[in-house]
Amino acid sequence: MRLIIIGGVAAGTKAAAKAHRTNPDLEIILYQDEAEVSYSACGLPYILSGIIPNRDEIVIRKPEEFKRDGINVETQHYVESIDYKSMQLTVKDLKTDTRKTISYDRLILATGARAIVPPVKGVNLQGVVTLRSIEELDRLKYTIDSTKPKKVIIIGAGYIGLELSEAFHELGIATTLVEKLDRILPRFDPEMAQLVHDHLIENNVEIILNDGLVNINGINGRACSIEIESGRLVETDLIVLAIGIKPNIELAKKGGITIGETGAIKVNTKMETNLEHIYAAGDCCETIDRVSGEITWVPLGDIANLQGRVAGDNAAGGNAHFPGTLGTSIFKTFDLNVAITGLSETAAKKLGFTPKSVTVKKNDKARYYPGGKEVIVKLIADKKNGQLLGGQVIGQGASDKMIDIAATALLGALTCYDMENADLAYSPPFSPVLSPMIVAAGALSSMLKK
Amino acid sequence: MRLIIIGGVAAGTKAAAKAHRTNPDLEIILYQDEAEVSYSACGLPYILSGIIPNRDEIVIRKPEEFKRDGINVETQHYVESIDYKSMQLTVKDLKTDTRKTISYDRLILATGARAIVPPVKGVNLQGVVTLRSIEELDRLKYTIDSTKPKKVIIIGAGYIGLELSEAFHELGIATTLVEKLDRILPRFDPEMAQLVHDHLIENNVEIILNDGLVNINGINGRACSIEIESGRLVETDLIVLAIGIKPNIELAKKGGITIGETGAIKVNTKMETNLEHIYAAGDCCETIDRVSGEITWVPLGDIANLQGRVAGDNAAGGNAHFPGTLGTSIFKTFDLNVAITGLSETAAKKLGFTPKSVTVKKNDKARYYPGGKEVIVKLIADKKNGQLLGGQVIGQGASDKMIDIAATALLGALTCYDMENADLAYSPPFSPVLSPMIVAAGALSSMLKK
Repeated sequence: MRLIIIGGVAAGTKAAAKAHRTNPDLEIILYQDEAEVSYSACGLPYILSGIIPNRDEIVIRKPEEFKRDGINVETQHYVESIDYKSMQLTVKDLKTDTRKTISYDRLILATGARAIVPPVKGVNLQGVVTLRSIEELDRLKYTIDSTKPKKVIIIGAGYIGLELSEAFHELGIATTLVEKLDRILPRFDPEMAQLVHDHLIENNVEIILNDGLVNINGINGRACSIEIESGRLVETDLIVLAIGIKPNIELAKKGGITIGETGAIKVNTKMETNLEHIYAAGDCCETIDRVSGEITWVPLGDIANLQGRVAGDNAAGGNAHFPGTLGTSIFKTFDLNVAITGLSETAAKKLGFTPKSVTVKKNDKARYYPGGKEVIVKLIADKKNGQLLGGQVIGQGASDKMIDIAATALLGALTCYDMENADLAYSPPFSPVLSPMIVAAGALSSMLKK
Repeated sequence: MRLIIIGGVAAGTKAAAKAHRTNPDLEIILYQDEAEVSYSACGLPYILSGIIPNRDEIVIRKPEEFKRDGINVETQHYVESIDYKSMQLTVKDLKTDTRKTISYDRLILATGARAIVPPVKGVNLQGVVTLRSIEELDRLKYTIDSTKPKKVIIIGAGYIGLELSEAFHELGIATTLVEKLDRILPRFDPEMAQLVHDHLIENNVEIILNDGLVNINGINGRACSIEIESGRLVETDLIVLAIGIKPNIELAKKGGITIGETGAIKVNTKMETNLEHIYAAGDCCETIDRVSGEITWVPLGDIANLQGRVAGDNAAGGNAHFPGTLGTSIFKTFDLNVAITGLSETAAKKLGFTPKSVTVKKNDKARYYPGGKEVIVKLIADKKNGQLLGGQVIGQGASDKMIDIAATALLGALTCYDMENADLAYSPPFSPVLSPMIVAAGALSSMLKK
């Protein structure tokens, strides 16, 4: 039995490891088009900033280490096509530029996603970059070292754009964020996103809203300014395109695999595609939103790992299910820890819920204990029955802890009435006597009872 | 309508505040036998150590502040008796040594708990102390300042004993823990408690196990040594009795209020005692263990707050319920953060469950992100259906976050199969790609499926 996995970052390598544990007799081959395998793409902003001094630290396992577990990792191998009927792949060795055909018994697609490059003039100029892969990071680092940019423009004010704003600030490069929408962080409710907006301004990040990229101008093959919809011309030394990512589905589509309405590969909870013996996992496939029940696409590293584990288990003869996501995510920008789970109030309204919300501002430790920091917690529940719909946490304090409590509460389909009497761990060095989550749930309960 | 509350630390003051919010027209009188009201008893060890420099910082609200909300706080007033039939109390003013009779329409008992003083010779000598109240703290601080002890013996190796071990170490006072049982921290499973034991030893705390206090010897009215069951004589300058606490139920008992089998006041989920219009909340009353369904007594500050809120609401005409506890708790001793929720494996076995457990050791951030620290997570589920029964977390890392995830999972009656696919917040500064809780749940799921 031969399992072939296409893609070797998060989902692919996790699938390989799990498949091997489930069935150690399985022959496993993993094809990866990059030179590196098994690296943490989420670590890229911290290598850029220098918080993580050595780029090799985000490489979790080397191909040789996989080999020891009987997993054959072939880097710089690009899978060109899938022939479902003959159960064969055509693979191109990018080092030698040669092709071969290989058969599979089970196939897992973990082809990931890539940065969207907008179709405007000048995107191919030097000094215009995207940052999704370790190769792109290496190129960006080289560009910075060799050209010493003083100004950078980041197109797109999502998580990556905001993480990169901090990274460039650390490098002493003046940062301008350009966002087509009327605000940053559209997944968050407007007043919560505004807190982050204000914090960026305080840290000297220039933010241009309601203004999309029209084209990029260059001198001697190098980008020197951008033109935006308002007609404004903004000079710069470096441009990062962070308007979003899209799933790598071309191979799947060509091979007859169904693409869902989100644009990513359609899978069931076993991570099976429409074609027998072919699975998909990670940023290339869609999933279910557990709060709304809608089909969604959540390209995040932890979800890729969870899906990879399920796909790997099933491809090796197991019987695992991935029940979907809550869209939980967190990022850090400057001194703020910014986190969300479930639906925003805005999203909940659109989906037909009757959301009510409270926002509380609390310390994350006992007020009198040194080192406590603030968290602003917004908690949202359905007026009908108190069912929790989502949470957002922003602050210098333990947003990660608060959001994980909220995410676990959503997983348990708990109400604000359940959470107002939650028995969370209290001691002055760790929490105020009532956790900010309990205080928020209590306030929400009182509001709903009225 | 007059509401009288007896006791003004955690449950009493919370009940007063909530009752006032529920019914602002209510006349509220709170009697407190100490001079201080509304202080955080859990902060006492940190005032002792000096981490919190000013003892007034743990006083949350002054009587004058309550007055502004229409709550009359009478400090140094001791309620001697309750006459249920006439709905009257006899109250003694400790400052003037005079008595008065006052009627109530609603009554809340929040009389708390006190340190157990063992019935051995010498407990009344100078240099023998307990530490439950801010008055006891003041006396202990005075004793330390005036006698400059070089050695202290702490009798009892529970949470308080361990928190105080660190505090005395900070003060440069050599610490010996004496414990009657064969190990410290009996609520934890033995191998987890051992991790804490080893850490204490590394920090030069002497631990004597399997050895109870027989008597205390003195010179000139001051304690100088203890004799323990093994016959050993241990010299010391100071003795802290931390063998446990017991609920203050004498007033309730005398007034005809039913005491439960735990020795604390029996209440229903509305915090009502057996007598009409009389409620109890906090360390003086019992509650339900939500995992086992058993009646239990959990004298902790956060539970007191939650119960006080429910009692205050109901006494003011509301309709609130306190559904019980999970026994979640956390404490810090030296560099270890030690936390538990739900049942230990040992306790689960005794209660007739078929517990299985895993223990994982993980970083609390991405391995390559600076500042990550280790947590050791033990997770316990029932073999029958995967239902989570409890968790224990020990380490220098984010034990508080891990245990709150586990506690919320218990609240939602989740299984290890639910938790292995939990959607928790991942980004390198906050978590490894899969939270230690997910890794533990995954390992437990694999084990149970075999």
